[in-house]
Formats: sequence, C-alpha cells, structure tokens
Amino acid sequence: MPDVQTTKLCRSLCLTQVTEWNDGFVHRVEDYLVSEEPLEIRLNNNPVSVTMRTPGNDLELAAGFLFTEGILDSADPIENIESASAGRNVVDLHSRNCAWEPQEMQRNFFAASSCGVCGKATIDSIRRRGLAPPNPQFRFPADLLCHLPDLLRDQQEIFGRTGGLHAAGLFGASGDLLVLREDIGRHNAVDKVIGWAFLQHKIPLGECILMVSGRGGFEIVQKAMAAGIPAIASVSAPSSLAVQLARESCITLIGFLRGRRFIVYSGEERCVPLEATELMT
Amino acid sequence: MPDVQTTKLCRSLCLTQVTEWNDGFVHRVEDYLVSEEPLEIRLNNNPVSVTMRTPGNDLELAAGFLFTEGILDSADPIENIESASAGRNVVDLHSRNCAWEPQEMQRNFFAASSCGVCGKATIDSIRRRGLAPPNPQFRFPADLLCHLPDLLRDQQEIFGRTGGLHAAGLFGASGDLLVLREDIGRHNAVDKVIGWAFLQHKIPLGECILMVSGRGGFEIVQKAMAAGIPAIASVSAPSSLAVQLARESCITLIGFLRGRRFIVYSGEERCVPLEATELMT
Repeated sequence: MPDVQTTKLCRSLCLTQVTEWNDGFVHRVEDYLVSEEPLEIRLNNNPVSVTMRTPGNDLELAAGFLFTEGILDSADPIENIESASAGRNVVDLHSRNCAWEPQEMQRNFFAASSCGVCGKATIDSIRRRGLAPPNPQFRFPADLLCHLPDLLRDQQEIFGRTGGLHAAGLFGASGDLLVLREDIGRHNAVDKVIGWAFLQHKIPLGECILMVSGRGGFEIVQKAMAAGIPAIASVSAPSSLAVQLARESCITLIGFLRGRRFIVYSGEERCVPLEATELMT
Repeated sequence: MPDVQTTKLCRSLCLTQVTEWNDGFVHRVEDYLVSEEPLEIRLNNNPVSVTMRTPGNDLELAAGFLFTEGILDSADPIENIESASAGRNVVDLHSRNCAWEPQEMQRNFFAASSCGVCGKATIDSIRRRGLAPPNPQFRFPADLLCHLPDLLRDQQEIFGRTGGLHAAGLFGASGDLLVLREDIGRHNAVDKVIGWAFLQHKIPLGECILMVSGRGGFEIVQKAMAAGIPAIASVSAPSSLAVQLARESCITLIGFLRGRRFIVYSGEERCVPLEATELMT
C-alpha cells in the first residue's frame, strides 16, 4: 500500500486514502475516518478511568461519566477543570465537596498509565507486547469477501429472533466458516471466537479472516493482532486508531462490506483480484 | 403494566410480554430478549475482570479475554477450569505456567465484587445507590416518538460522512431536541449528553426522553436512572437486564423504534395514545 498517512480535519474527523472495491473495479479514493483516542478522566488529581472516545465535548464526557457512575453527586459543584490540551487527552475535574475516596472505588475501570495518554502511546503499549505481524503470505480472492456477511447472518441462530446480538466469525481462506460466536457485546463475540481457537491450540490463526457484525474499532484490531489473524472484515466503519494500528501491524482491514462493494483500509496486497485468482488456478 | 416476568428459554434467550405500538394500534405480544449477565473472569483464583455478556461459551470468552489482553500466552496450558455453574457466572482458569502477577496488571478492568455475580446482584448494587425512581407524572404522546429517529439523524453532522458514530439525544416532552452528542462509543455519547446537563445544573432530567442510536443495554438504563430520565428510546433491541432494571425502576423503555412502529418494554403508562392527547388539549 502506498502512502498511508491520515490528515486530521478536526478533533473528531480525519481524511485518508483508501481502496474502494466495487464489483471487481478498484479505485483509490479519499475517505473520512472517525477519530478514536483514549481520554484519561481524573477527579481531584486522581486518575479514575481511561476510555476510548471520539475527541470533542471531553468535559461533558468526564462529568457525565463521574456522575452516572455515582462518583460525583448532582449537588457537587465543579470548581476547576483542567481541560484536555491538544494531544494530551486528559480531563481533571476538581470538586472540593466530593465525598469520593479513590480507595473506595468499588469498580475500577481502566487504570491510567502515568504518562499522558494519546493514540500513539496506546499503539506503543501494544507494540511493547512484541507481537509478530501476522502471516505476510496469506492471500484471499477479493470476491470471496462478498459472501461472508450472508454466511455469518445465515448462521446466527439467535439474531433472527431478537435482533440484539453481535456476531464474530472466523473464516478460512476459501470462505469456509470455522466458528461463529454471538454476544450482546462486540468484543465478547471476538473474545469467544479467539478463545475457541486458544482452547483448541489453533493460535496463531495465520490463515483466517475475522468477520465482525459491527464496527472495526481499535480493540478488535488489537485482539486480532494478539491471535495472529491477518485479515479483518466488518460491515461498518473502522475508527482512525483501528486503521492506524492495522497499517502499522500489516493487518488487512476491510470496512463497509455490503453487497458487492467494500473498502480496504489497510493491507490490500492480501486481497487478490478475480483475474489473478483465475491465473493462479 | 401488568405482570412483567420474563421466562428463561435457554441461557441466552428469554421471553417476555411487551406492548407493540403499530401506527396507533396497540397489541400485547410476546417477545424474545437476549440475556445479558455479568461474568467474573478469574485466573488462578484471582479475579481479573467482570464483563457484561450473553451467557454461553463462557470458557471461550474467559480464555479469549485473558489471551488477547496478554495475560495468558498461547503456549500456556490450561490445567483446570472451574466453570460457571448455573447462576454463578464465574469462570476460573488455572494455568501453572502463567507468568502473570495480579499486582502487575497494567490495566485493571472491572474489579470484582466478592460475592458471586449475577444479574440480580448487579441490579441490587444499583439499588443500593438509593436513586429515586424518575418523575412518575411525566407523559408524552406515543406518536411523538416516531419523529425522534429522524430528528436525531438530521442533526448528526458527522454520521453522514463516516457512518461510524453513535448518537445520544435528549428530547423534551414535545419532541424538541435539547442536546445531541456523538461518539464512537455508545456509552460515551450518553455520558456526554448527561454531562452536558450536569454542568448546566439541569439534573434531574425528569421531563426528558433519551434517544440512543444503538441498543438499549443495561448500562444505558443505569446511566438514565442516575440522571432521573424517565424514558429511553432506541432503534434496536434492549437486553434482558436492561428491561429488568427499567421495570424495577419505573423507567419507560422503548425499542425497535422504526418508522411508525415501536415496542414498549417497560412503563407504557407514560406513552399516551393519540386520542387521549387530543382529549387533553
């Protein structure tokens, strides 16, 4: 893939070059990505949580989180706010009246890293785990992708009756479904699929495509990377950080897989056009 | 609302009585709900995380989570598994080789409560916060709901360009949009909306309807409850635990709000038919 830079348009949107595959025709186009970055929420200098969010309205996010989790009371006045300066991704709310004690936290969320958090640091922390890039030889016919959403949907036993479940499926290079799991949480469905492979000693999954029913977010790419999965497809949009991590990790990332069209955000070399597949056989 | 029991069909599905509103015609029907319950994941007797999930394939979920988070290595053999017995919602994986130390956890997830976790305990812990049920007098015309998804979509500036963002909007009783916030995370969009109200000293939001673009899960109902919001609407399905909490807390919960049709899962007395509204004016 050529130059893979993203251009920040505003705090919540960036622009990047992607490849559109439309019924066999391939175009390079510019596409918008929603920004996803971590935000560290602090109360009276104490880190409470780190959440992955779209930048914008960060003070509201911090106040709403602390209030709905019962840490701040609606009567607590906010005296002072150290807001997120560009790239720092930290909001520190100060409230003298607040009775909350950090030690009393019944549920602690993501513990904060001591350094200022940012997308780069988040990717660096993944990199420090020393995961190898997934199988560089893995290839699949571009055409095959278009069948995966239907295969996934056909197998979703529960979805038809409730409409409430996310699905994750692991497919082989010829489009055969190896395992499908459902859950109300998208991450859980992916954990179940990878956990199935783990318990069967099938890790790394170097010859597989992971298809998810929802959005391809940062944490989905991170989980695929841990399992050595070389390609991820989803019916919806990936986030900026998902695209960045996929590109740095040489993972093929496909989005908006609908009907006979999809967008390749990363690793398009794995996605072989029909003519080339015919030559190969 | 009459009897509001749910019947468990299997671990991941239950059946309950709901009210279908279809272009002014109201029916009592039976509907399937996806189960949502907490699972406590332990490694070598140490609690690592509690995640809200759909019961089923819990061992895979635990193994997949511990592996993709870098706590278990793919070479670590699982020697022993104490699986979730019915209603206990705990999986304890044992692996002697595992080098992981609980103290070294860089990110700690939900800290586990010491008692066995279950949906009931989760709701009990919310109840212990002593939140008052939201405004029992609040009413709105059933017809008004049908306009909310379009109003939300029209206002979503970013969605049109990326397709990747969730939205949460707060509407007044006459369908006026008070605030809309977007985020890649559904919970974050709700936190931003409630945080906006918190910072403007508008809590409790006793005359408002919260509309969310995605699914109405347990945590959305919990957040609405904290802010005193009497009604929640979503275009998708709620979970079993969301319905249970909404019913116990006297919150009106609407799902599958699409076109001229929606399902009322809880608190239908707030949703006034057109004739009654005409009589009122």
